[in-house]
Order: sequence, then structure tokens, then C-alpha cells
Amino acid sequence: MVRVAVVGAGYWGPNLIRNFAACADTQLVAVCDTDQKRLTKALAGFPDVAPVREFDELLGRADVDAVAIATPVGTHAPMGLAALRAGKHVLIEKPLAASVHDAKELVTTAKEMGRVLMVDHTFIYSGPVQRIKQIVDAGEIGDLYFIDSVRINLGLFQHDVNVVWDLAPHDLSILDYLVGRLPRSLSAFGTCHADSVREIEDVAYLNLDFSGGLLASFHVNWLSPVKVRHFIIGGSRKSIVYDDLEPAEKVKVYDRGITVNGDIEARRGVLVGYRTGDVWSPHIAQTEPLARLVSHFAECIREGKEPITSGEAGLRVVRILEAAQRSIKAQGGRITL
Amino acid sequence: MVRVAVVGAGYWGPNLIRNFAACADTQLVAVCDTDQKRLTKALAGFPDVAPVREFDELLGRADVDAVAIATPVGTHAPMGLAALRAGKHVLIEKPLAASVHDAKELVTTAKEMGRVLMVDHTFIYSGPVQRIKQIVDAGEIGDLYFIDSVRINLGLFQHDVNVVWDLAPHDLSILDYLVGRLPRSLSAFGTCHADSVREIEDVAYLNLDFSGGLLASFHVNWLSPVKVRHFIIGGSRKSIVYDDLEPAEKVKVYDRGITVNGDIEARRGVLVGYRTGDVWSPHIAQTEPLARLVSHFAECIREGKEPITSGEAGLRVVRILEAAQRSIKAQGGRITL
Amino acid sequence: MVRVAVVGAGYWGPNLIRNFAACADTQLVAVCDTDQKRLTKALAGFPDVAPVREFDELLGRADVDAVAIATPVGTHAPMGLAALRAGKHVLIEKPLAASVHDAKELVTTAKEMGRVLMVDHTFIYSGPVQRIKQIVDAGEIGDLYFIDSVRINLGLFQHDVNVVWDLAPHDLSILDYLVGRLPRSLSAFGTCHADSVREIEDVAYLNLDFSGGLLASFHVNWLSPVKVRHFIIGGSRKSIVYDDLEPAEKVKVYDRGITVNGDIEARRGVLVGYRTGDVWSPHIAQTEPLARLVSHFAECIREGKEPITSGEAGLRVVRILEAAQRSIKAQGGRITL
Amino acid sequence: MVRVAVVGAGYWGPNLIRNFAACADTQLVAVCDTDQKRLTKALAGFPDVAPVREFDELLGRADVDAVAIATPVGTHAPMGLAALRAGKHVLIEKPLAASVHDAKELVTTAKEMGRVLMVDHTFIYSGPVQRIKQIVDAGEIGDLYFIDSVRINLGLFQHDVNVVWDLAPHDLSILDYLVGRLPRSLSAFGTCHADSVREIEDVAYLNLDFSGGLLASFHVNWLSPVKVRHFIIGGSRKSIVYDDLEPAEKVKVYDRGITVNGDIEARRGVLVGYRTGDVWSPHIAQTEPLARLVSHFAECIREGKEPITSGEAGLRVVRILEAAQRSIKAQGGRITL
Repeated sequence: MVRVAVVGAGYWGPNLIRNFAACADTQLVAVCDTDQKRLTKALAGFPDVAPVREFDELLGRADVDAVAIATPVGTHAPMGLAALRAGKHVLIEKPLAASVHDAKELVTTAKEMGRVLMVDHTFIYSGPVQRIKQIVDAGEIGDLYFIDSVRINLGLFQHDVNVVWDLAPHDLSILDYLVGRLPRSLSAFGTCHADSVREIEDVAYLNLDFSGGLLASFHVNWLSPVKVRHFIIGGSRKSIVYDDLEPAEKVKVYDRGITVNGDIEARRGVLVGYRTGDVWSPHIAQTEPLARLVSHFAECIREGKEPITSGEAGLRVVRILEAAQRSIKAQGGRITL
Repeated sequence: MVRVAVVGAGYWGPNLIRNFAACADTQLVAVCDTDQKRLTKALAGFPDVAPVREFDELLGRADVDAVAIATPVGTHAPMGLAALRAGKHVLIEKPLAASVHDAKELVTTAKEMGRVLMVDHTFIYSGPVQRIKQIVDAGEIGDLYFIDSVRINLGLFQHDVNVVWDLAPHDLSILDYLVGRLPRSLSAFGTCHADSVREIEDVAYLNLDFSGGLLASFHVNWLSPVKVRHFIIGGSRKSIVYDDLEPAEKVKVYDRGITVNGDIEARRGVLVGYRTGDVWSPHIAQTEPLARLVSHFAECIREGKEPITSGEAGLRVVRILEAAQRSIKAQGGRITL
Repeated sequence: MVRVAVVGAGYWGPNLIRNFAACADTQLVAVCDTDQKRLTKALAGFPDVAPVREFDELLGRADVDAVAIATPVGTHAPMGLAALRAGKHVLIEKPLAASVHDAKELVTTAKEMGRVLMVDHTFIYSGPVQRIKQIVDAGEIGDLYFIDSVRINLGLFQHDVNVVWDLAPHDLSILDYLVGRLPRSLSAFGTCHADSVREIEDVAYLNLDFSGGLLASFHVNWLSPVKVRHFIIGGSRKSIVYDDLEPAEKVKVYDRGITVNGDIEARRGVLVGYRTGDVWSPHIAQTEPLARLVSHFAECIREGKEPITSGEAGLRVVRILEAAQRSIKAQGGRITL
Repeated sequence: MVRVAVVGAGYWGPNLIRNFAACADTQLVAVCDTDQKRLTKALAGFPDVAPVREFDELLGRADVDAVAIATPVGTHAPMGLAALRAGKHVLIEKPLAASVHDAKELVTTAKEMGRVLMVDHTFIYSGPVQRIKQIVDAGEIGDLYFIDSVRINLGLFQHDVNVVWDLAPHDLSILDYLVGRLPRSLSAFGTCHADSVREIEDVAYLNLDFSGGLLASFHVNWLSPVKVRHFIIGGSRKSIVYDDLEPAEKVKVYDRGITVNGDIEARRGVLVGYRTGDVWSPHIAQTEPLARLVSHFAECIREGKEPITSGEAGLRVVRILEAAQRSIKAQGGRITL
């Protein structure tokens, strides 16, 4: 039984509290927040969990094996590092840190201390993404040709981060889970409308260039009149469309594509054949992703395993976010990774 | 009555033939194609129209006031120039020419010869785009914040042009119609899968940066498992979604957006308010865009008017296409226009 | 402040508990359930509310002005009558009672005792239905031509009632709210697949014939592979489509219809003209219907007003349900109301 | 090579003309219409086909093996009977005849004359319906539980027939193809709004009761603000949804349903289990249904085979239409078939 404390009882913390309390492999022992009112509210249904006001006090508790950090992104690194150095295993809300420098230090420190460092890329533990990963890994898609992601809607504006740091970690974590490596280079474009003073972008596009003909594009937007959560994975054999707003058929596998004539001479003539076959939507059980995540966190601590959403995965996503930020400021200048 | 000859009886030509024959303001006098079989087939229902094999012969005919050119893009400039120099008014299929150089020469020559030069940006004459233009020009949208266009489906591969030159002219012509000026800079990304030998891109993204906070993005794709024709115009007051695949409600106007607090000091606090109002889908009469186009062509010739889709408009689209091509080859390098 | 007790802490009860506790005009004083475990769970967050095991005990409490009954349909009448006779105001979950006889007795008793009797037709208090009612009452629809309702999905099977008594009260209450009178006659059709022993219908159709050319049809189904919640109101001037599964545009008003040539002689020639105009989707604020309902209940008690969803409205719906049941058993035999 | 004449060059005739002319197994020799203008227009592209003004003249031609009748429904029987008696094979547009009496006489006469009688139930030859038939016949659906059909849109009003005779033959022919027998009884409901003088119904519902727990329902409507073409086939093992307006995935097979506990005693407890599995949309080649139909007509004549859409199938559909008409006039009175 892993004994866990949750830090931060704001927007996301209560979800961690609920899931750590419900998980058979974890025991929620404490929750930490500087705001007494939030703390009281968050612990309403959990009389046996200790309320803690000071983070340092929390780290000093011997009955805490691991801490889950759900605080503003600027505090991820200092808190995560302190917790690792105090010998705790650490789960950090996405994005892992506010800079590549910080994220690297987290990864290094976890290694040095021999502790599990995990990033809360929640989507990775969702039924649809798990199913997509299986299909891709089984080779059904063939070579990856393109990945196109659209995550747009009206609001909610954040005070501290732009739309890239707010929304793109979801899709970049899915990309990273499927592809497992960094792109060769990246260009990003963004504009500010709501907050041009502090230059917080509310519309942005990311274009990632992988070697081998794979292009990945991301559209994130807080000003869209319509809500879209659409993800296409184009492959040489089949293609997948993942529409997170579909109530029942979120993942569809299309047996459609082109067949390229292998004979170069012949190709001067007829280039391309088309295949259009069946469409298949696998049944996906509805499980709360966070329930799987906390259970996996406990398993990694218990068995000394590398988490699926490891610190390294979190670092790769932060690398892309930081590069995207630089590219936006350079009006789409190409950044090599 | 403007006397017209159509050149090229392949894929698009028969549509021009049908519409010029049906239009009350034009008389179709001849059709020119080097392929006798195609010529015969195209003229089946038009016994009074002269079949012509040689383009030069066509230009020599005194009963031809105007020619409509629907031939491969590489021939647009030489044929268009010859026709203008022979004193004919000219309509050219999109894109206007294969290069900025050629497009410019067409524009200049038309001016010198005092003849109408029009590009067949068909979509501009469609009911939905006409309606959108009215709404934007009436100020209902407010300032333009972003334009996002997706035109993707499986196939059809072209032998001579890539997906950018094939599909993007449609959306770029709509953009140009709404914005009326070139972007400050542009970056484009593309990959080849079907024809890596000749490097014909089948997936591409264009990012156009206008001054004043307007970003325009275009996704064109021949490898998508699903067909999408989706165009969002985000504005400061309202936003428009144009879905060309919707059978009945192609254009929707959303009274949704944000209200930025004008007081900079106050903005440190609450940044942004949200508005969500009604959605309105104006009724749009179903008229064939090409019918309006040929009628407008006749009107411009008769009255010496500048066409809505003038040579200049065609040139601006070719500027973007050529810059996009260069940017793709530079792996997304930024091109200033 | 109306002091309320909720009876039944099963499926629906907790929603009433939450809303009565949150409403500014009501005070939740007690919750009654014979099952101690359910009672404890339901009252977890409400330390000041009294748990009561015996219904009779509840009725004896002087601090209870009104009771809200959320128990199986067979107990609605005995419990409701006892509560009214004990001088309490009564809210009863839909359907009001298991028979017309019982429903009538409830209505009569409420009148005799001078107490408010209200049926929990929750949908009537939803934003979409309120908006539709306004539009219809404003005359925008013109004469009602037809109402078509589809409420189908897989499951959930009930042990005690068939699909008509389970699902149709929702749609019949909306119908009753819009039309305000009983149909002239009714025919219903149903079949049993899951429980042919006890003959609990799982697929059913109701056809209601109103005078004046209005036909209303209802499809309710527990065996459908797809979930549909679709309601069409066809009118002489405009028509409304209410799709409860649409996340953002649940109500759409179509300015479409026919114009009948008034001159009978002329009609021998051209019968009908078509109108196709704009489509308009009014913004509808998201408020919990039950919050409005409990507030309205308090208002009716305070001011001695007739509830929108009065006992009479509940009785009319039960009349239709009972007639439908009889018609189904008579294989669709026509029942006059 | 079957030599065919088409009778009636109005709305549907030209489709028959085009398909009989294109089919490799048929030779279009003549087209008959009393209206010279229509005749000339219909034969524009077919210089070798004889225009015939008089039907009697057509029947006298020795070079005509078969006639295809696409005239108003009231003329189907007299023309069909005359053609059969003249020794011709006969194809008749749907519905086969205006009454059961007439339809029976056609069937009997065809048998006596030893000629092929086929009804043009076009949908039966469409890719989706062919695929659905295969799936149903393969037993994948299990027992049929319910069939629900919705065919509604605005217009087009007919002068001679009501919405039932106009739209329902499509869906009833699909039903008949899948089920192959008449229902036990039927009730129908309809109202008139556009033409109350001549009582031409524009909204109607049909409920068909088959033995063995199968219910089939049909909604046909000329006054709907939205266009719907939706067909559900609910089964004990799987279910099918056929949405004819879907551009790409018209047929979907849902591996969803209930599992009834076979043990009656046990069923007093837990009644029903739910299955939710994959959804599968088979690829369906796009072939023109009428091309298959004319080829099948030729095959039946050549080989003396019974057509899929035989006179008997046409008669069964007319039986339902006539019974529906009677039921509507009896305000939904139940008609036994």
C-alpha cells in the first residue's frame, strides 16, 4: 500500500484526492494546501486524511511515501525537487515543468534519488488512447504518414499560461506516446487578442517535422465558436480518427489509403491506386483515466518500474512546448530539436 | 451578347461549355481541343458550336470575343497571353498561372491590351461565400482574428501538381476575397508519400501571418481517411463556420466570443468575459456558381468592369502558392511576401 | 422558507435532496427511507437533516410543510394521499400515479385539503423546453401540424414498469405543456422481448390524434443500438427541432414550410408553395431544471399558485399512459379519451 | 439481347432510358409518350431509338420484347395488362398498381401469359440494401425485434397520391425484401394540411404487427423541416442502422443488445444483461441501383427466372398501402391482412 499526499486542492487536486482515496493500492494520508477553506472543502468526505498547510511539514512526515503535485506550473519544479530530495516518489500534473531546464533537473534528481517520477499525462490512460496505441503497435496502421490534431473551443483563458502550454500538452503527450521520439524540427505560430499586453497567445498552430515523411500538426485555440477535439492518424495501411466529442464511437479505424506502385518506371504512368474498405469502431470500456493512472503510479513504486508517462516523456513534451514558444516569438521561425 | 470560345474539353471544360451555352448574355461559338474524340463528345448536345482543333485557328476567328481556358496549368500563361494579344477577353481556370512571373505578365498584358482578364475562382461565386462576404463586409464579425481552413479527403492524385497547387487555390481565393491583401509572411510544410521520386506533396499545411493579429491556416491533404471541407472565420464580435459538406446549413454565424476588459489596470484582475449568444444559419439559395461567374464575365466585358476575381486576385493567390512551395522545400522556412 | 422532507433515497431522491438543500426558498429538514444504508449515504453531506425510517413518523413531524416523494410508482398514490391528508404539500416523481383512478384521487384530495400537488415533470423546467414554450406561445410556429418524438437507446430495463411508463412521461409531459389538452383518441403498439413472461414491453409506439389536424407520435425503445432524443414540432409557419443530445444547439427554429393556395378553384392547379428561410438556434442558458422546479414548488406553496406541472397535468399524462397500455394489449385498438 | 421499350418520358422515364441504353444485355428500341416535346427531349442522345406516340402502336411492334412502364400509378394496371396480353415482359414503376385488385390481376395475367412481371422497387438493388440483406440472411442479426423507418423532408407534394403512396413504397419494399411475408395486422394514421379539400395526407405513420414479436413502424412526412432517411433493424444478436444521407458510412452494424436470462425462475431476479461491442461499417461499392435492376430484368427474361422484385412482391406492398389507406380513413382502425 503506497501512502500518498496530494499537494494543491484547487481545480485538479480534488480529482487526484478522489482517485487516490478510492484506489486499492494507495492510501491517501494527507492533503496540502495553503488555503484553509479549499483544504476543508476538499477533505469534506475524507475524515481520516490529514489536512496540512505547510509543504515543508508534509515532506517531513514519515508516513508519506509519495506526493502528487497539482499546483501552478511555476511551482512544479521547486516542489517536485524538494519532494524527491526528501525521498518521496513524485507525480506531477502536466506540463512537467515550466522550462526544459527545470524538467531536466527533475528527471536527473529522480534518477539520483532512485525515486519514481511520473507526469500526469492523463489522456494516456484513457480507453481511446490505450486502444489506439494497441492498434498502432500491432502494425495495423503501417507507417505513420501524418498526425493532425485539433483542440479548439471558446475559453477558458488562463492567467499564467498561453493556449499552447494549456491545451497542447494533451495532444503532444498522445503524439509522444505513439511516436516515442522528438521531431527533427518545429515551427509554431500564434497570436494574442485577449491579452496583448502580456502577450498571452490564444490561437496557435504547431508544425512538427519528424524524419521519414511524418508531419504532425496541432491547432489549439481559445477563441473558436465551436468545440472540436479531433485527432487523425494517417498511415500507409490504415488510418485512425479519434473524435473525443463523439459519445459512443470515439475511435474509428478506416481501411482506406493509397497503394503506391513500387516500380519506379511504371510509376511514370499510373502513380497511385486507392483502397476503400470497411470502417471499424472498436468498443471501448468507460474507465476513468485517472483511476488507471494512480494505480499505475502505485505499481511503478512497488515494482520499481518506469512509468508509461515517465519524467522523460514529460521532458520531451516540455522540450516541444518551449521550442514552440520560441518559434512563436520568432514569427514561426524553425527550431531544431 | 459576348461570343465565347472554350479551350480544353477535359475535366472542367464541359462545365464551362454548358454554362456559356446556357447564359443569356453569352453565345458559345466554338470549342477547341486537340483531342478529336473529346471534342466530339463535349459538343454532342451543341450542334451549332464549331469544333476547333488548333488554338491558333481559334484566335484567328473574328466571331470570338472571349476565350475561356481550361487546360493544364502550365499552358495557362502562353495561351492566355496569345489570346490577350489577339484582342480577346480571357477567362482562365484556377490557378491563374504556374508562376508569379507568368501571372504578372498576364495581368500586365491584359492592362496593355485593354481586355478583361478573369480567373475562374469558382467558389467566390457560390452562395455560401457570397453570403459570408456580405456578413463580413457589414461588420458583423468585427475584426478578423483567425481563419482556419481544412480541405482534406482521400485522393485524387494529380500527375503534374502537388496538393497545395491542387486544393489550396480554392481556400486561398476565399481568403483573398475576404481579406483583400497579401499576408506579411508565410510558412508551409509538406510531405510526399505517394510520389517521393518526383516529390509531389500529398499532405501540406500553410500558415499565413497578416499584420494586426490575423493568422490564417490551411490544411490540404490527399491522404485523409475522412472528407472535411471546414472553414472558420473567427472575429472579435461574431464568428462564422462554413461547412461545405453540410447539405442544408452550410453557413452558421455564432454570436460567441470574448469581451476584453479595456482598462489595463483592471485586466491584471479579470482578463476576459465570455459571450455566448444565438446561432443563426442564413438561408442560401442554390445557384450554380459557374452560372454566376459566366454572367459576371459577360457583364465585365460589356461594361468594362473589373471582375471580382480579377487577374490581380489570381496573381495574389499565385504569389502565395509559389511562396508556399518555396517554404516547403525549405522545410517550413519563413517567406516574406 | 418552506420546510421539506424527501421520501426515497434511491435513484432520483439524492437529486431532490441536493436541490432542496441548495434552494434559497426551501429548507431540507428530513429524508425518509426504510433502507438505513441508503439513508446514511444520502445524508453524508447534510449533517443537519434528520434521517427518518418510518413514513408515518415523517408525516407526524410538525416541522415538515411539504414532502417530495421519489419512490416506486406503485406507492405514489398511497403516500401522496397520506401526506396530503396530514396537511402537507406534495411533490411526486413522474408519473404521478400508477392509474387514472389513483391520480384523480390525488388531485381531488389536494383540492379538498387546499394543498399544493405538483408532479415532477422535470423536463418542463429545462432551458430548451422553456424556450420552445415561449416560441410556440408567441405564435411563431403558427398552427401545430405534427409532433414527433423519438426517445430510444439500449436499456435500462425496469423491473416494475414497461418502456411506455418509463420513458414516455418525459415526452408526454412536454406535449401536454405545449398543447394543454388531451388527444381525441390514441393507439399504441408494443412488443416484449426481454421479459415475455411478465409481458413488459421494451419497444413501443404511441399515436395521438388531436382534433384540428394535429397528430403526435412517440417512439420509446429500450433495444435501440443508437441513442436518440429527437423532438420535432411541425407548424404552419415555422417548425422546431429539439435534439437533446446536441451539446450546444439543442433547439433550432426552421423558417420552412408550405404555403397553401387559399383559393380552392386555383388549388386544382398549383397546390402548394414552399418556403425555405433561415435557421435560428437561440442561446439557452444552462440551468439545472430541478433547481427551477424546487424553487417553483416553494413559490406555489408560498403564494398559493397552481404549479406549471400541476396534479391535473400529471393526471392528463397518466390518462394517456393508461390508455396506451390498454391499446397495446388490444394490439393497437383505438382508445377514445 | 432483350429488346425494350420505355413508356413514359416524364420524371422517372429518362433514368430507365439511360440505363436500358447502357446495359449490355438490353437494347432500347423505342420510347413512348403522348407528349411530343417530352419525347424529343428524352431521345436527344439516342438517335437509334424510335419515338412512339401511341401505346397501342408500341404493343404492335414485333421488335419489342419487353416494356418498362413509368407512367402515373393509375395507368399501371391497364397498360401493364395490355402489354402482358400482347406477349410482352413487363417492368412497372413502383407502386405496382393503384389497388390490390389491379395488382392481383397483373400477377395472374403474367402467370397465364408466361411472361416476366417485375416491379421497379429500385432501393432493393442499391448497395446498402443488398449488403443489409446479406447480413440479415447470414443470421448475424438473429431474430428480428423491430424495424423503424423514417423518411421525412419538406415536399414534394404530389397531385394524385398522398405521402403514403408516394414515400412508403420505398421502405415497405425494403421491409418486404428482408422479412418476405405480410404483417398480421396494420394501423395507420395520417393528416392533411396542404390539401384538406381532396384529403391528400401529408404526414403519416404506419404500424405493422408481424407475429413473433416483430413490430415495424414507418414515418413518412412531406412537412418536416429536416430531411431524414433513417432505418433501424433491431435484432436479438446485432442491430443495423442504415442512414441513407450519410455520405460514406451508410450501413453500420452494432454488436449491441441484451441477453435474456433463459431460466424463468432466475429471471424473477436479474432480468437482462447488456452487451456493447464493436461497431462495423462495411464498405459498399457505389453502383447505380437502376443499372443492376435493368440487368436483372434482362436476366429473368433470358433465363425464365422470378425477379427479386417480382409481381408478388409488388402485390404485397400494394396490400399494405391499400390497408394503410383504409386504416387512416378509419382514424387508425386496425386492419387484418
